[in-house]
Amino acid sequence: MIELTQCFEFSASHRLHVASLSDEDNRRYFGKCNNPHGHGHNYQIEVTIGRQVPDEAGTVLPLPRFEEIVKREVIDRLDHTHLNADVPEFAELNPSVENIARTIWGYLDGKLAPATLRRVRVWETGKTYAEYAGE
Amino acid sequence: MIELTQCFEFSASHRLHVASLSDEDNRRYFGKCNNPHGHGHNYQIEVTIGRQVPDEAGTVLPLPRFEEIVKREVIDRLDHTHLNADVPEFAELNPSVENIARTIWGYLDGKLAPATLRRVRVWETGKTYAEYAGE
Amino acid sequence: MIELTQCFEFSASHRLHVASLSDEDNRRYFGKCNNPHGHGHNYQIEVTIGRQVPDEAGTVLPLPRFEEIVKREVIDRLDHTHLNADVPEFAELNPSVENIARTIWGYLDGKLAPATLRRVRVWETGKTYAEYAGE
Amino acid sequence: MIELTQCFEFSASHRLHVASLSDEDNRRYFGKCNNPHGHGHNYQIEVTIGRQVPDEAGTVLPLPRFEEIVKREVIDRLDHTHLNADVPEFAELNPSVENIARTIWGYLDGKLAPATLRRVRVWETGKTYAEYAGE
Amino acid sequence: MIELTQCFEFSASHRLHVASLSDEDNRRYFGKCNNPHGHGHNYQIEVTIGRQVPDEAGTVLPLPRFEEIVKREVIDRLDHTHLNADVPEFAELNPSVENIARTIWGYLDGKLAPATLRRVRVWETGKTYAEYAGE
Amino acid sequence: MIELTQCFEFSASHRLHVASLSDEDNRRYFGKCNNPHGHGHNYQIEVTIGRQVPDEAGTVLPLPRFEEIVKREVIDRLDHTHLNADVPEFAELNPSVENIARTIWGYLDGKLAPATLRRVRVWETGKTYAEYAGE
Repeated sequence: MIELTQCFEFSASHRLHVASLSDEDNRRYFGKCNNPHGHGHNYQIEVTIGRQVPDEAGTVLPLPRFEEIVKREVIDRLDHTHLNADVPEFAELNPSVENIARTIWGYLDGKLAPATLRRVRVWETGKTYAEYAGE
Repeated sequence: MIELTQCFEFSASHRLHVASLSDEDNRRYFGKCNNPHGHGHNYQIEVTIGRQVPDEAGTVLPLPRFEEIVKREVIDRLDHTHLNADVPEFAELNPSVENIARTIWGYLDGKLAPATLRRVRVWETGKTYAEYAGE
Repeated sequence: MIELTQCFEFSASHRLHVASLSDEDNRRYFGKCNNPHGHGHNYQIEVTIGRQVPDEAGTVLPLPRFEEIVKREVIDRLDHTHLNADVPEFAELNPSVENIARTIWGYLDGKLAPATLRRVRVWETGKTYAEYAGE
Repeated sequence: MIELTQCFEFSASHRLHVASLSDEDNRRYFGKCNNPHGHGHNYQIEVTIGRQVPDEAGTVLPLPRFEEIVKREVIDRLDHTHLNADVPEFAELNPSVENIARTIWGYLDGKLAPATLRRVRVWETGKTYAEYAGE
Repeated sequence: MIELTQCFEFSASHRLHVASLSDEDNRRYFGKCNNPHGHGHNYQIEVTIGRQVPDEAGTVLPLPRFEEIVKREVIDRLDHTHLNADVPEFAELNPSVENIARTIWGYLDGKLAPATLRRVRVWETGKTYAEYAGE
Repeated sequence: MIELTQCFEFSASHRLHVASLSDEDNRRYFGKCNNPHGHGHNYQIEVTIGRQVPDEAGTVLPLPRFEEIVKREVIDRLDHTHLNADVPEFAELNPSVENIARTIWGYLDGKLAPATLRRVRVWETGKTYAEYAGE
């Protein structure tokens, strides 16, 4: 198995908030991340794909094609949005960094043939990241 | 003159929008940065202070004191906010990275004696920064 | 399995030295890292925890709680110390970056429930890191 | 298993080109990476080695020895070269980042005893890397 | 004066060589940077522009316009080239990092009105940069 | 004026302590940075030199020569030391990051002809740096 990873970036707002919890519990659980108007991040993502045997050019997937797919499936949906307000997947789902990683996995899984999706890492700040590699 | 610089970070949302322009002009001028619900960034700031002669400990300002002042004057006002909605200085003023740098200068100038404020640099992403050194 | 990683930093001195080796062998084995008064590093650590199913907020562990545990169990013990002189675990054990990673694993393993500790990575400089994922 | 990783860097030129494809197909497949005179990168590599039980000094391999081996087997062969023109392994093989990772694996595998080679990661730019961990 | 800086990147090959020096002197002066087939780098550039008073949107220059000018004047000329072979400015001129910085200044000076060009910084690797601010 | 900057790194221990202050005042002033056995950092330094007109090779100073001088005058004196105990300049002088920058200036000023020393920047951690440009 040989793997290829490409890094991407998007800027978005979010508010950590769980509808099933009381306002007070949300406040206690998320602190200032629960502020009503939200706040934002430059999210960095690393998408890793793999293949047992590379193609005749020695690549897992030509980079321009890899980038085009991630741009269409991920960046165009999330960049310069307020995740809770603008992205259907987060209308109900709390946009924690873990849920963002799993949502991006869902956007990409099965779309990168003949390569397979290996893992998605999402950096929320330069100090925190979530990683999801499927079930 | 010996200078000391400390880096800080805050996360915030903003929307680029100028009230005196038409919606169409705002859209043309700022593109997706004009999206109604805003988007966000991890802002990195570098605050530089200086002094002709350091104190007997060889410091421009003791670091804990320097950090405490910037935390109180800048970070507590901007971190985890929606700049346009939550910060009075940006109620009317477009929160461009240049205006954020000048606003932070205004928050800090004159508060760091016996050191003097030399410059404020604000990174909006890892690729864009504004710098202001006073008039 | 969804994973969450948080980065931390501590500054410490250390001296590479193995008591069971002669002074000459220590010198030959570790070079200037064996200098008697020691030298120091800004250590960066990445602690990764995981969970099969995230909680209702979509998190592996609330970040403030995760940070509080690592601060108490790791940072408070190691930051601004001379590892050989101030930290009991390194009174006999050579503070190599590999041993630091294993020691931090020991400090944290079993303390992060309901999440489980997945791996500990320790950067000694921007070019060298050790990683330990348990036996 | 405890792992130790060391980062290295080399500067090289390359041209993406597959002899069995027509000029037009090469152009279509690789775009400007197929430019006749080539272009270049600062390649960053991360070499990871491991060992079940560290030696009595608590190290996987003494760092000076680890660095000396990688310098001799990898850096001296690739640094400041035009990969296609100067490195025999790439006389026929397309110097994609994936093939570079697999070639470096071949240079190092079996040379780092008593440690074993675990993986080789090659960054072509700050946004793209390939990783190979053997078959 | 308020300044705005944007970072860009291009990949290129170069060979350090001065035609007026003997082959032996070139070799002595530049070492392996004089290798006949050249080598390459990911060059990072920081372009800084300034303005006494920002426009009504609070910007020195709208970022999309700033990026478009640098892309056209600099990146399109230098990216994925062999500087000595493909770029007329370096047909005679040694493509040292200092000369690259001065050449980029020449490409951009006077093209960014109503902003003025303040300085150009070129990183050849993560450890070396040249900066030019005009005469 | 064209400038050239090279980055270097050294690892060292230090203890912030001013002999003319009481133990209690030292403790109050420096906090845990006053711990008796010291602590350490990976110091990053940026040395900037300049010249009105570059030489015929278009360089401020050939990089190998620049590196050799800084290695001999700075790195060999400070790397892998305990600054207070091993470096004569800090026997009495508090090794604050500001004093380290000024001391390095003293080591280098006048040694880099025909280039002139322009500034010395010393990063103590990834968040704090001092800069000195002479009187």
